[in-house]
Amino acid sequence: MENLNIVLFQPEIPQNTGNIGRTCVLTNSKLHLIKPLGFSLDEKQLKRAGLDYWPELNLEIHESFEEFREKYKDGNFYFCTTKGAKNHSDAKFQKGDFLIFGRESSGLPQEVRDVNPEGCIRVPMVNTTTRSLNLSNTVSIIAYEALRQIGYPEMK
Amino acid sequence: MENLNIVLFQPEIPQNTGNIGRTCVLTNSKLHLIKPLGFSLDEKQLKRAGLDYWPELNLEIHESFEEFREKYKDGNFYFCTTKGAKNHSDAKFQKGDFLIFGRESSGLPQEVRDVNPEGCIRVPMVNTTTRSLNLSNTVSIIAYEALRQIGYPEMK
Repeated sequence: MENLNIVLFQPEIPQNTGNIGRTCVLTNSKLHLIKPLGFSLDEKQLKRAGLDYWPELNLEIHESFEEFREKYKDGNFYFCTTKGAKNHSDAKFQKGDFLIFGRESSGLPQEVRDVNPEGCIRVPMVNTTTRSLNLSNTVSIIAYEALRQIGYPEMK
Repeated sequence: MENLNIVLFQPEIPQNTGNIGRTCVLTNSKLHLIKPLGFSLDEKQLKRAGLDYWPELNLEIHESFEEFREKYKDGNFYFCTTKGAKNHSDAKFQKGDFLIFGRESSGLPQEVRDVNPEGCIRVPMVNTTTRSLNLSNTVSIIAYEALRQIGYPEMK
């Protein structure tokens, strides 16, 4: 069983998804991508992007959020959003949890967040006007806090 | 006073340094770059790379590791390396600590790590043959573990 499930809702920037895939391989986590994607996953493009670890990735593509949600309806979902009320490190994570991240440009839409407002978490930041953390960094930060809590299974 | 000092030893890839700068701005941390750098810091290039937050960054450039070390000889140094014996989350961080990261291609050289072998920390990973985490992700993971321990000062 995978340590975590990392879910990207309609990701736009291929470099971010590539980096997140690498983090998934190195943490024994499964990557879920929810369509539409802002890039192609064909082999030639992946090779050009230097994603030599991509074949080792446990990857699942979903046609829609509804399809994903129906398939994993018993999963424990966390929605990672700058609009979350709770710090990510105050959540109590368990092995196999689903960490769901929104688009680079616009985050997770309200109808997705509304699925479980209690499960909305955020990474604390200094209050600035415009920018938030890069998506790939946000995934790493939350994933490693969850991995710390569950004791880094099969990692060293 | 800054929350953390993030130190990049001879960084090679401008996108990583750009992303790490963004993380520094959002965490009230100071970025130190130790020369030689694998890229130019001139204004035109930064603008082209979309680093609109760069003017807000607390940045210090050092001519050499020796110069940096001499200037901050009373600082608490952590060397972040895949060769570290201790997990990053087993370290006890304090406000103002220095987190030192090596080159993307080759990490921190032994003579730098030897400055304080006790301070060498690593991010746990699944045992794979070739790859480790992206530098920008590694910085985020360790910085946010330190920030969690010190209580996210002035962050929300």
